[in-house]
Amino acid sequence: MQEYGHFDDSAREFVITTPKTPFPWINYLGTEAFFSLMSQTGGGYSFYRDARLRRITRYRYNNVPVDAGGRCFYLNDNGEVWNPGWAPCKTELDSYECRHGLGYTRINSSRNGVTADLLTMVPLGKDCEVQQLTLTNTSKETKSLKLFSLTEFCLWNAMDDSSNFQRNWSIGEVEVIGSAIYHKTEYRERRNHFAFYSVNQPVAGFDTDRNAFLGPYNGFHDAQVPFIGESRQSVAHGWAPVASHALHLTLKPGESKTYVFVLGYIENDPAEKWEAPHIINKARATALQAEFDTPEKVDQAMAALRDSWESLLGKYVLECADDKLLRSVNIWNPYQVMITFNMSRSASYFESGIGRGMGFRDSNQDLLGFVHMVPERARERLLDLAATQLEDGGAYHQYQPLTKRGNAEMGGNFNDDPLWMIASTAAYIKETGDMAILEEVVPFENDDDKAASMFEHLKRSFYHVINNRGPHGLPLIGRADWNDCLNLNCFSTEPGDSFQTCGNKDGRNAESVLIAGMFCFIGRDYVELCRVNGLTEEAEKAEAHIAEMEACVKEHGWDGGWYLRAYDDAGRKVGGESCDEGQIFIESQGFCAMAEIGKDEGMPGKALDAVAERLETEHGIVLQQPAYQTYHLNLGEISSYPPGYKENAGIFCHNNPWVMIAEAIYGRGDRAFELFTKVSPAWIKDQTLHTTEPYVYSQMIAGTDAPTHGEAKNSWLTGTAAWMYVAISQWILGVRSHYNGLIIDPSIPASMDRFTVKREFRGAHYEIRISNPDRVCKGITSLKLNGQTIDGQCIPVQPAGTRNIIEAVMG
Amino acid sequence: MQEYGHFDDSAREFVITTPKTPFPWINYLGTEAFFSLMSQTGGGYSFYRDARLRRITRYRYNNVPVDAGGRCFYLNDNGEVWNPGWAPCKTELDSYECRHGLGYTRINSSRNGVTADLLTMVPLGKDCEVQQLTLTNTSKETKSLKLFSLTEFCLWNAMDDSSNFQRNWSIGEVEVIGSAIYHKTEYRERRNHFAFYSVNQPVAGFDTDRNAFLGPYNGFHDAQVPFIGESRQSVAHGWAPVASHALHLTLKPGESKTYVFVLGYIENDPAEKWEAPHIINKARATALQAEFDTPEKVDQAMAALRDSWESLLGKYVLECADDKLLRSVNIWNPYQVMITFNMSRSASYFESGIGRGMGFRDSNQDLLGFVHMVPERARERLLDLAATQLEDGGAYHQYQPLTKRGNAEMGGNFNDDPLWMIASTAAYIKETGDMAILEEVVPFENDDDKAASMFEHLKRSFYHVINNRGPHGLPLIGRADWNDCLNLNCFSTEPGDSFQTCGNKDGRNAESVLIAGMFCFIGRDYVELCRVNGLTEEAEKAEAHIAEMEACVKEHGWDGGWYLRAYDDAGRKVGGESCDEGQIFIESQGFCAMAEIGKDEGMPGKALDAVAERLETEHGIVLQQPAYQTYHLNLGEISSYPPGYKENAGIFCHNNPWVMIAEAIYGRGDRAFELFTKVSPAWIKDQTLHTTEPYVYSQMIAGTDAPTHGEAKNSWLTGTAAWMYVAISQWILGVRSHYNGLIIDPSIPASMDRFTVKREFRGAHYEIRISNPDRVCKGITSLKLNGQTIDGQCIPVQPAGTRNIIEAVMG
Repeated sequence: MQEYGHFDDSAREFVITTPKTPFPWINYLGTEAFFSLMSQTGGGYSFYRDARLRRITRYRYNNVPVDAGGRCFYLNDNGEVWNPGWAPCKTELDSYECRHGLGYTRINSSRNGVTADLLTMVPLGKDCEVQQLTLTNTSKETKSLKLFSLTEFCLWNAMDDSSNFQRNWSIGEVEVIGSAIYHKTEYRERRNHFAFYSVNQPVAGFDTDRNAFLGPYNGFHDAQVPFIGESRQSVAHGWAPVASHALHLTLKPGESKTYVFVLGYIENDPAEKWEAPHIINKARATALQAEFDTPEKVDQAMAALRDSWESLLGKYVLECADDKLLRSVNIWNPYQVMITFNMSRSASYFESGIGRGMGFRDSNQDLLGFVHMVPERARERLLDLAATQLEDGGAYHQYQPLTKRGNAEMGGNFNDDPLWMIASTAAYIKETGDMAILEEVVPFENDDDKAASMFEHLKRSFYHVINNRGPHGLPLIGRADWNDCLNLNCFSTEPGDSFQTCGNKDGRNAESVLIAGMFCFIGRDYVELCRVNGLTEEAEKAEAHIAEMEACVKEHGWDGGWYLRAYDDAGRKVGGESCDEGQIFIESQGFCAMAEIGKDEGMPGKALDAVAERLETEHGIVLQQPAYQTYHLNLGEISSYPPGYKENAGIFCHNNPWVMIAEAIYGRGDRAFELFTKVSPAWIKDQTLHTTEPYVYSQMIAGTDAPTHGEAKNSWLTGTAAWMYVAISQWILGVRSHYNGLIIDPSIPASMDRFTVKREFRGAHYEIRISNPDRVCKGITSLKLNGQTIDGQCIPVQPAGTRNIIEAVMG
Repeated sequence: MQEYGHFDDSAREFVITTPKTPFPWINYLGTEAFFSLMSQTGGGYSFYRDARLRRITRYRYNNVPVDAGGRCFYLNDNGEVWNPGWAPCKTELDSYECRHGLGYTRINSSRNGVTADLLTMVPLGKDCEVQQLTLTNTSKETKSLKLFSLTEFCLWNAMDDSSNFQRNWSIGEVEVIGSAIYHKTEYRERRNHFAFYSVNQPVAGFDTDRNAFLGPYNGFHDAQVPFIGESRQSVAHGWAPVASHALHLTLKPGESKTYVFVLGYIENDPAEKWEAPHIINKARATALQAEFDTPEKVDQAMAALRDSWESLLGKYVLECADDKLLRSVNIWNPYQVMITFNMSRSASYFESGIGRGMGFRDSNQDLLGFVHMVPERARERLLDLAATQLEDGGAYHQYQPLTKRGNAEMGGNFNDDPLWMIASTAAYIKETGDMAILEEVVPFENDDDKAASMFEHLKRSFYHVINNRGPHGLPLIGRADWNDCLNLNCFSTEPGDSFQTCGNKDGRNAESVLIAGMFCFIGRDYVELCRVNGLTEEAEKAEAHIAEMEACVKEHGWDGGWYLRAYDDAGRKVGGESCDEGQIFIESQGFCAMAEIGKDEGMPGKALDAVAERLETEHGIVLQQPAYQTYHLNLGEISSYPPGYKENAGIFCHNNPWVMIAEAIYGRGDRAFELFTKVSPAWIKDQTLHTTEPYVYSQMIAGTDAPTHGEAKNSWLTGTAAWMYVAISQWILGVRSHYNGLIIDPSIPASMDRFTVKREFRGAHYEIRISNPDRVCKGITSLKLNGQTIDGQCIPVQPAGTRNIIEAVMG
């Protein structure tokens, strides 16, 4: 039994058994426009579409106490005050359980004969968070309880909210009508949106002024109103608007009462903003409140939410004997992939939601993991991304989700960026067969005057690499490649300068072997796209470029035992045996081995062996070794981290699956799977050491050079989720879509004797039964579709609506 | 007796008698490079020069509990824990007193037979904060106490520190050597500075990891280490580095022990960063620690600090019978002026220190208040400001203190900006006689290739107004004039758009009557500068421009009963009788009356009467009336505030002294003084209503339209300080410097029968004894210098080193 929690696979939940987890363990509610983060104590916040510009509730990052604030209920039971989520009062509970499920969180706790069951979710298609709280008297006495809700509003722009007090403390405005509290700051001016917090029953009182609710100098833990047991009916004028309801209730022994609270976001047409001077038009708000004014309606919303996830996760279902693998493949990995798609890297407990927009390559890579679940949203995302591309094939590094425009402030000139769009578009077409996307006319730089077909975008992506090669014929790295922190053209001496935007070298020298490997691996997708579209000449031309690049890597990108990582601005090797520090890097080993560069010479196998020998640890593969002990002007941010953390020899999980895929391609399914279990949360042994949520991937786990080796950071929003899912589902279990069908090509541990994958693909159902009687790691000896033997490893596309049985025998 | 505190004028201190003030009441420590903010409970933070880029300790704005964090001491007395500053534990104290003095704060409190006396100050010329804590056993038993210090480090860049957790939680690093804890995050890379926190005695233990000190999910109020009474000797690797010392002591009855803690900032030469690999060179740090390792050394530093303030405040000393006026003129107003000069608008409890740089016009106006105290620093500031001026005479609105470069991001094109530089330069020359500054060659836009004399800068300032006039011949307002929020060219419909940077009108229509008034009033300084420098022709040309502008205001800027405020982009009046809202504004009444525009027609008197009738309240003069009830696209931010707050009919204190000065010029000393007492903190009657510190000016007091009329916000960093000081010292008491001497021109309440001003001026001492036997408000009938009658009202400059007696008789 683990110390803090465990999986409940039948409910598709992770069960947290104590609120005192090593770090807040959160869940995400909402999949479309209204999003909430929610921790095991009920902490977190809500926003509408954009975590920076439309923050609905206030959250304090890096707070003391950790995770204080967010939404909160206080129960005053005869003068004693406790919270269903334990925090902020931390009154000891008689029982506690938090279940993070797919798009909802349920906290059940009890104290002194009262049980609180709090279900929190964001209904599909609705811009609100619903909180259903059921209180039950399990004692033998009648209980008189006072319940107080509390949520603190953010004044919309989270950045401004946390810095511009000389203005903000004068502008807060609310309205209170019955059981609904309306937050309307700045609605008087240019905003046509407001928030509300309501409850489905008459209230005994309310508060909207934080200071009145808390009392001066009090914390959330000793808030005056719940301890006194009486609301103050405060109306906020400036300072900090909050919403708190007071509800008085009497429960007989065994009796339960259920309250439904709704935190909603409303936009009005500019012409219909007001119902009277200074009085906001609440028609839409009251309608939304009415949609969730009974527990039955909440039940319906929960059922719809479950159905939705059932459908999403039903696109790829594994059956096998390994519970840990099942929960990875069928529940938590695809769930995290969907969250990552929704959030990009914007809002987690490590990403403050104000720092950045959508990453160009992040989103392209995330798409690899979710394209089979929501291909229509993948298509939209692809076109959005392509529209931010530059005419020369390069890309802005990020774009803003509300405007969908490239964000020059966050930099550009990361020379791996364009290739990821080829990978994602190819993945989309393989999944859907939708070749028509290549004909879509898409702007460059969001400028309709600069538009071209999506195919032309991909072509420019491909040739952006060819047109930007360095002294050795390898791709110029630009500001950095996938490794944001390997900054070979910056030479920054100014404290605090962003390595992502500063730089003083012309960028015509430093080269990336990783981009070369990507070019060879992903470039083949471009070649195939040309071929299936009849562009034979272009395909051959592209193939020649790839062959040339391969030769170039073999000549200049191989260092005897492994692939080099790069050449710096002075033409010195990075990631070579001659380096004192940073002798070997993971990224180029992964991608060059995936591309099988130097296969005839045995390079991939040697490189993978070198990774195992020099980079692998019990918690995963570190980024490079030896760690940089000092700052290297010519390498940039990578050397700025203390050894063992982040890119400086931390286990940067995102790149680990590249090695797994390479091992799978190389045929070493045992190794591929072993590496998979080292990083996958289902196999975590020590939750205390790991620190972050043991049901999702974290971006980084401290490496062997760190004093805290094994400690994870930056959970949830990491490209790790998509790549690990690709590695396990497509390359290890080996069921992957292709232009003409489903490829069956497992590369598994020899100990695995059979498994089944149920796959929805282009409208048909495929039940793929794979047996491994000879206990091999790779190789299909027989493949049958509905009883008919198939040549090769590709099941052709079957008519929509059909159900198909595939039997594959390994050997 | 006031509820929360009172002045102690003999000690030049404000005495806070309960820690539970309505809002944290702070003080500023440091006047040169190392600055600390300190509240009555010990909250606040420290920074080196730049509150954004070199934040030394972490502070959480808008926190719950309010003001939690900052520096803190815990005393564990036999298991009971309390803080000398009451917070964060809020254990009830037997006695409490906080004294905010000039550059230091002393908190004295006691509980259960132990008295804690905590003196905190920043020594002159040193980059550190010294905290001297004396513990005394006043009981009859021997006491065994455990003392724990705590300070939490900021990872230098306060903006990044509060948002970039995915990086920051991996980079924290410390060293602990004896009783000193070193914070060296990012020192390994591009920083050559670090911080330390030390104590002058051996410690029983230490902590540097916040989580270890607090315990998981604990707050500062229930931090585990002080409650358990044992340090953990934790060493931070990432997350949140803190510094805590543990000291065990035994005190016999009556015995005292004194500890000196030093929070220091050290910069090393890049070549001398390390004493060994990973070990920072601490030579400078240990030297600084040694400078304050005994109470005697602290006493010396305190004496030097007192001498320094004695000298600064000695430049203008009032003697009279009115205690409130004395403490305003001799202590708190000039003290606040110096703080405002040091901070500009960067770091207060309302300004987060990350929002903005130095304001161009803010700094020019602040200079009016402090130029007589530190003229050499005023000179430096003037040249810095001029170097950011644009070639056409316009200005960036802000510049960064570390780089001294204009900040285009924060906007420009505020058409009043250039005039303030004429006012400040003239004030500097009047104070010092240093005409040579006009010959200094100063760049435009910080570009040495675009340099010209300071005089040329002033000339371009003057003609920037002339070259930018609108349809009525009045000055174009640009983005806005002094009133940042009167945005006549923005027409912004986008929520959250900054009114200071957005805009879509060409700016060739909207005009400002305020700038016209400023041009006439300040323009005369330019004329005089021309004349005293023999540029007669230029003086006459400039005078003609002023006369023309005066005529223009009389024709197009007068609305029958008062001066108009502006014309909007469509040529409609703003601040005229025909307006439904915003019929009359304070700013143009103030400056046009100061300039005596339409004096022959009685305009200034009528305008001042209109102010009294329509804008004056018991707490000061509101900005305009009637308040804007809805957002006006053509007016911008002013109409975005709820009625009664900020620029939308709040009492925006900064402009109140303009009316006082105008009343003084107009000869109504009674009125001028009455208005002075309405805004001046010394006269505050209701500290609870006022909310902010009752010893300094706040930017804004809620107006009559607000539900909280009388509530102040945005204390400390406001141009109010300088202008109120100018109003009282130069125009009401009427002693002001001029090119050739000191002008004596009081405009006082008739009830004031005599007062004396002791003035240091260009190296000589002037004791100016003014009597008012006829109880008039204005007018000098006799003026004697050392017994010799003087014609006119100007005492000629006397030789440096002389002491002079001036006798002036009013009548």
